[in-house]
Amino acid sequence: MYRTHTCGELTIANVGQEVTLAGWLQRSRDLGGMTFIDLRDRYGITQLAFNMETNADLCEQARKLGREYVIQASGTVIERSSKNSKIPTGDIEIEVHHIRILNEAQTPPFTIEDNSDGGDDLRMRYRYLDIRRNPVRRNLELRHKMAMQVRNYLSNQNFLEVETPMLIKSTPEGARDFVVPSRMNPGEFYALPQSPQQYKQLLMVAGIDRYFQIVRCFRDEDLRADRQPEFTQIDCEMSFVEQEDVLNTFEGLILHLFQELKGLGIGQFHYNSQFCQTHGQMLPRITWHDAMRLYGSDKPDVRFDMQFVELNDVVKNHGFALFDNAELVVGICAKGCAEYTRKQLDALTDFVKRPQVGAGGMVYVKYNADGTFKSSVDKFYTADDLKAIAQQFNANPGDLMLILCGPAMRTRTQLCALRLEMADQLNLRNPNQYAPLWVVDFPLLEWDDETQRFYAMHHPFTAPKPEDEALLDQPERWGDIRANAYDMVINGVEAGGGSIRIHDRTLQNKMFHTLGFTDETAYAQFGFLMDAFTYGAPPHAGLAFGFDRLCSLFGGVETIRDFIAFPKNNSGRDVMSGSPSPISNDQLDELQIVLKK
Amino acid sequence: MYRTHTCGELTIANVGQEVTLAGWLQRSRDLGGMTFIDLRDRYGITQLAFNMETNADLCEQARKLGREYVIQASGTVIERSSKNSKIPTGDIEIEVHHIRILNEAQTPPFTIEDNSDGGDDLRMRYRYLDIRRNPVRRNLELRHKMAMQVRNYLSNQNFLEVETPMLIKSTPEGARDFVVPSRMNPGEFYALPQSPQQYKQLLMVAGIDRYFQIVRCFRDEDLRADRQPEFTQIDCEMSFVEQEDVLNTFEGLILHLFQELKGLGIGQFHYNSQFCQTHGQMLPRITWHDAMRLYGSDKPDVRFDMQFVELNDVVKNHGFALFDNAELVVGICAKGCAEYTRKQLDALTDFVKRPQVGAGGMVYVKYNADGTFKSSVDKFYTADDLKAIAQQFNANPGDLMLILCGPAMRTRTQLCALRLEMADQLNLRNPNQYAPLWVVDFPLLEWDDETQRFYAMHHPFTAPKPEDEALLDQPERWGDIRANAYDMVINGVEAGGGSIRIHDRTLQNKMFHTLGFTDETAYAQFGFLMDAFTYGAPPHAGLAFGFDRLCSLFGGVETIRDFIAFPKNNSGRDVMSGSPSPISNDQLDELQIVLKK
Repeated sequence: MYRTHTCGELTIANVGQEVTLAGWLQRSRDLGGMTFIDLRDRYGITQLAFNMETNADLCEQARKLGREYVIQASGTVIERSSKNSKIPTGDIEIEVHHIRILNEAQTPPFTIEDNSDGGDDLRMRYRYLDIRRNPVRRNLELRHKMAMQVRNYLSNQNFLEVETPMLIKSTPEGARDFVVPSRMNPGEFYALPQSPQQYKQLLMVAGIDRYFQIVRCFRDEDLRADRQPEFTQIDCEMSFVEQEDVLNTFEGLILHLFQELKGLGIGQFHYNSQFCQTHGQMLPRITWHDAMRLYGSDKPDVRFDMQFVELNDVVKNHGFALFDNAELVVGICAKGCAEYTRKQLDALTDFVKRPQVGAGGMVYVKYNADGTFKSSVDKFYTADDLKAIAQQFNANPGDLMLILCGPAMRTRTQLCALRLEMADQLNLRNPNQYAPLWVVDFPLLEWDDETQRFYAMHHPFTAPKPEDEALLDQPERWGDIRANAYDMVINGVEAGGGSIRIHDRTLQNKMFHTLGFTDETAYAQFGFLMDAFTYGAPPHAGLAFGFDRLCSLFGGVETIRDFIAFPKNNSGRDVMSGSPSPISNDQLDELQIVLKK
Repeated sequence: MYRTHTCGELTIANVGQEVTLAGWLQRSRDLGGMTFIDLRDRYGITQLAFNMETNADLCEQARKLGREYVIQASGTVIERSSKNSKIPTGDIEIEVHHIRILNEAQTPPFTIEDNSDGGDDLRMRYRYLDIRRNPVRRNLELRHKMAMQVRNYLSNQNFLEVETPMLIKSTPEGARDFVVPSRMNPGEFYALPQSPQQYKQLLMVAGIDRYFQIVRCFRDEDLRADRQPEFTQIDCEMSFVEQEDVLNTFEGLILHLFQELKGLGIGQFHYNSQFCQTHGQMLPRITWHDAMRLYGSDKPDVRFDMQFVELNDVVKNHGFALFDNAELVVGICAKGCAEYTRKQLDALTDFVKRPQVGAGGMVYVKYNADGTFKSSVDKFYTADDLKAIAQQFNANPGDLMLILCGPAMRTRTQLCALRLEMADQLNLRNPNQYAPLWVVDFPLLEWDDETQRFYAMHHPFTAPKPEDEALLDQPERWGDIRANAYDMVINGVEAGGGSIRIHDRTLQNKMFHTLGFTDETAYAQFGFLMDAFTYGAPPHAGLAFGFDRLCSLFGGVETIRDFIAFPKNNSGRDVMSGSPSPISNDQLDELQIVLKK
């Protein structure tokens, strides 16, 4: 027995008890007559007291202990003279009778404090020290709690967690697979799953009508910031359900998580004043079309206003060619920003002209506090014209209107970037306020200019809305077909998404043809699923949440890396263990593969 | 809404209700005036009734439905005239008003019944149909329940589930790794984890003092029967603990599982009469040495007797050279088997002479019911001699003694095989009786004749017993060093195992040298763990349970494959999806690898 208590549990109620604690030396203070040591474990910090007068040997011994030494201390719990109200154990300390060094420690390369002096790279190299810090440990605790809540909630709803294989068949469609050479079947490879999509659909054919799994998935992509080659999904599928059943089930899950982990009920979310707020016990929904029209994004952040206002009606035919020739003129109104300086406005123009945003320029209209107007297009618009524009925006004196123009979809995307930038400048994106919603009615197909063909926006198994199904026979209307697909969006982030699946083989074949598969290529890739569908596939639907992302949203932190115990860097490398690494020639020989020179 | 109820929930209390069910057509019976359909879903079976007289059209329609069609049926719950007490819904049936075919089905290649006519291969190829069968579905349900119980139990004990990486560094020690070529780091490879051993030890260094994970692991081994290339482990690690703490914690888990999943308390296990049975609230323990001596196995099945009896004292020096020259003469006593025929005894001799067992022969001594003796060595032993042997066995009239001889360890292993064979013949291995126990004090090191060196029996991080630590300096005594290692054994199967880890770098280095590592080779493989240990590693210990195996034990079934949703065959192949499979040249090019011709 190394300890009788943890470092986080002793209080005034324990005074007088003989206890043994074990943990790491957080800091020590030598005050001459007394030496104090803060002993730390996962549960908290407890102060150890050593008295030079009563036990000089022990006190000397204590003074020699370095930071992060692992020690065991036995003594009596006593009341402190100067209490620390900031920690649960702050009323007591341990009058130590005996200490024992369990392990020595080198001085760590950065401080083990909430605000460490260690840079990102250093902390990743010594991740095992980084995790000793409260913020990182708390992230892992949150992740554990969320996983437990998810599992217990879904299990109580009759969902079965079924483990699907990690060594599966490689399919060229979609992102790039990680592959695993098979030694027993030379020249052949397994793939690591990008998701258990096909297996969960097979489980529906198998009659497991409510499936879930918190499951590792893999994507061999060039890593953008905050993407990981391996990530975790809450993967779900249900049979005998319509879209309404799925949305109800999984908003139930999300509401449960908000209640249990954040103490937030349905009435405590922060939707902007322009966004529908009253949905009873339901989360709000917005169609993909409206999301694009009003926020320029399929994952709108609706914590704050600045919904898009379309201006074609009021700005065209005033001799301003840029607007006259644009497919869409659209803007946002920044409340109370009429005082923005020339410099601030120039910076915003520069922002939208950055290659990542790609606008040609920005028009502003200031509705000054005194009721006058000032704009960058005064040459073309009279005060009355500007007033009409302001009315379109529902603007008040003191507001600032920012306007972009160009091809409709591209301009909306640009304005979305500007809207988020303004929200950041105005501190409207509080990570501790939440605005979850469903985006529904996604397009089924997405045109790709480069390859000149349509791709499945979601995946090839997503069902069109029944009322749009007939359009599959009209290739010129393919872009208009809506899918029974839905995303859960929280604070401008896609937390999860899914769809009703096609369970009918004829419709599935039609879909494959639409996506440019021949019967042969479709069968080569999805044959076993197509076969399965001939043996009695039930209507089914599913959804997956990004678990790392959900953790980071609930943690109020931007990066998912902070919620992964041992993440990889942007080159897919684990700098702590030095992986990936070369393997031996024997290993290569056994696998019957050769490296290219 | 596809259904108002499942097929398993309607009872006499629902009579009169209008309901809608959906499911698969299990069977239909055409009785002329009436047609009955058994509709099946995951939850049960409900009988649908169609009346030719009252609704001929609907009845005709129902008669056309084939096996495994997916159908939706609406109707009124009525009381059955002939009730079926075998199923929960057996008191009622549905008087159907409306049916709808949700999907047609080809006739399945085997019957979807508890006792299917499908062979193993066929059922694996159509695993999605196999899972529709009750026994397979129940196995997956048991697995889900066990995972939930494990997680909730450990979480309540302050264990954190932490996800460790799947793409890790390859280490040549131990079994063969599956490797994953890195496209972003050409020529380098990740490995899939054989276990998260190093990561869980790093988590201990990181201060996460109670870790667990239900985690997929991978081993590229030539597959023996009932081995899978990917398998699941309940992986655990704790800090600031001694062996006693670990054993207490995890026998708590196992006892919890027996209670919750099998309704078995500590007093309801089935230990043999020779085995210590009274341990209060604890599971019995046996040392590795005793397990080998008394059962010839480090995973003894103690549900039944036939403990080994050593006979050197009584059988030597009677002129029987085979016994006189043997290091060990050892036997078992089969109660009440004195009536075994010559043929049966010959079959047993053949059994022990099989190459898998490898004995040279078998000696028997019958203690006949009339008190006389008959043995295969009557030439060398008088009736009094044989009586002395019988006394050594504590045998009674009617018993049969079976005796092997040879080098001690090899003979024990052979006798273990004979003991299990006798138990099978005598039906002493009831899969619904359980005898869990701990095997402790394993040897630290194991001599390998082939490579002429010692290997770690457990792994290189396992700590020797402190009292045996000094023997590391005496190479001639290495075989005698005991480890602080322990296995949980249930019914002759290793359910889990673990050890106290070495947390001291000096001892770890000594251990590496003992295992033939140089400083360089040890550092190349385990450097980051060794580095971590210099920054304050706490004393720690851990254990892992084979989750697939634990499921099969609790399910009372021999093969783990039955508890894996989509298992692979003995060539590591998934015959359903056809994986592994060739990948495209583009994929190979991107990975910068070439296949050997």
